[in-house]
Amino acid sequence: MTGTLYGIGVGPGDAELLTLKAVRLIQSCPVLVWPAPLEGEGLARTIAAPHVPPGKTEIAIRLSFRPERDDTDRAYDAAAETIAGHLAAGRDVAVLCEGDPLFFGSFIYVLTRLRDRFPVEVVPGIASPMAAASVALRPLSTLEDAVAIIPATRAEAEIERLLAAAESAVIMKVGRHLPKVRRVLDRLGRTANALVVERATQDRQRLIPLAELAEAPYFSLILVQS
Amino acid sequence: MTGTLYGIGVGPGDAELLTLKAVRLIQSCPVLVWPAPLEGEGLARTIAAPHVPPGKTEIAIRLSFRPERDDTDRAYDAAAETIAGHLAAGRDVAVLCEGDPLFFGSFIYVLTRLRDRFPVEVVPGIASPMAAASVALRPLSTLEDAVAIIPATRAEAEIERLLAAAESAVIMKVGRHLPKVRRVLDRLGRTANALVVERATQDRQRLIPLAELAEAPYFSLILVQS
Repeated sequence: MTGTLYGIGVGPGDAELLTLKAVRLIQSCPVLVWPAPLEGEGLARTIAAPHVPPGKTEIAIRLSFRPERDDTDRAYDAAAETIAGHLAAGRDVAVLCEGDPLFFGSFIYVLTRLRDRFPVEVVPGIASPMAAASVALRPLSTLEDAVAIIPATRAEAEIERLLAAAESAVIMKVGRHLPKVRRVLDRLGRTANALVVERATQDRQRLIPLAELAEAPYFSLILVQS
Repeated sequence: MTGTLYGIGVGPGDAELLTLKAVRLIQSCPVLVWPAPLEGEGLARTIAAPHVPPGKTEIAIRLSFRPERDDTDRAYDAAAETIAGHLAAGRDVAVLCEGDPLFFGSFIYVLTRLRDRFPVEVVPGIASPMAAASVALRPLSTLEDAVAIIPATRAEAEIERLLAAAESAVIMKVGRHLPKVRRVLDRLGRTANALVVERATQDRQRLIPLAELAEAPYFSLILVQS
């Protein structure tokens, strides 16, 4: 009997925004895995903290988060082998993910490495666009609106094409790409309807109209309405 | 002291996919409101059922769900006035929504009618694209992927333009629009990578490759990958 690999969305930050299922599995799985910077806990583990009982085996996937991602494959390869050992020994493993595991989630890299060898189940989590919309009290979409989810890392012309195609947009991973994103929104005349949401539902949450923002942290996104 | 209006996402169907915050507020609010067909409970109330203690004041917003929507405004106007009476009397009111309240959510129609008169808080919920991806074990997006969320009610040319703009797409509210959507996906050569997910996480959940599907219920969506 092998164990089951669970990808568990822990939501955007508020520890009350985990689902009942996520909490149950975090409590019952003997092994917890979480992505983290080279030092420290990482956001997913911090979010889940109030729900983690003592005595777990914990595995950190240490990532430099450099844009080059040159160490990322190696880190996931090594983590996957460690996880595989626990699963082969019959232990269930819960991989914690900020937001939702399959929406820009780090769990995808574990899933692709282990899905053919072990049973896998994903517990969806509250994703950052929904969290941002909730704290801003701004609808993401009504009736026939299309919504474009756009990583700010994309080329300027691609961001413009995607924005032009949909009534509503969420620009993710803004950080150092803010000047580029601002240029596109200015050109499309949509800056006035763009709201920057930083760390939605976390302690240092901020909501700032794009027109008033100087610089954006990585964990920010922009809600753009028509 | 007026009450607070809560928009509460109850997620896609599985009663374990409510957040801890949603459950707490459903239990503590004396008044529950839920959209429903002309007869019966409606999906949001059914999903929340295991978490609803006896003794609540319950208000159904009765909707015909006809495409004409000619009775919709009147139903929300009347519900908003009933809700306003409870809030003015100091009672907190929880409006239950399938999925997420601000992502194609019925709560938006209550929010627009009452947000200027009463304190409002939204509790995000697991939205259907994330639920569908989880049961299909298919990533919605990785790294630099853009995601287009497209209502199938849109014109055929618009669906095509939106699909062409993004690596990943979720086509919502498929139902009777299936033939139109299938034509577009066939033209773009993307039918082979399209998976229909019906009632994700609900009892009668089904996953069907689009190429094998004859007809789709309203509560289905299509995941399309590049």
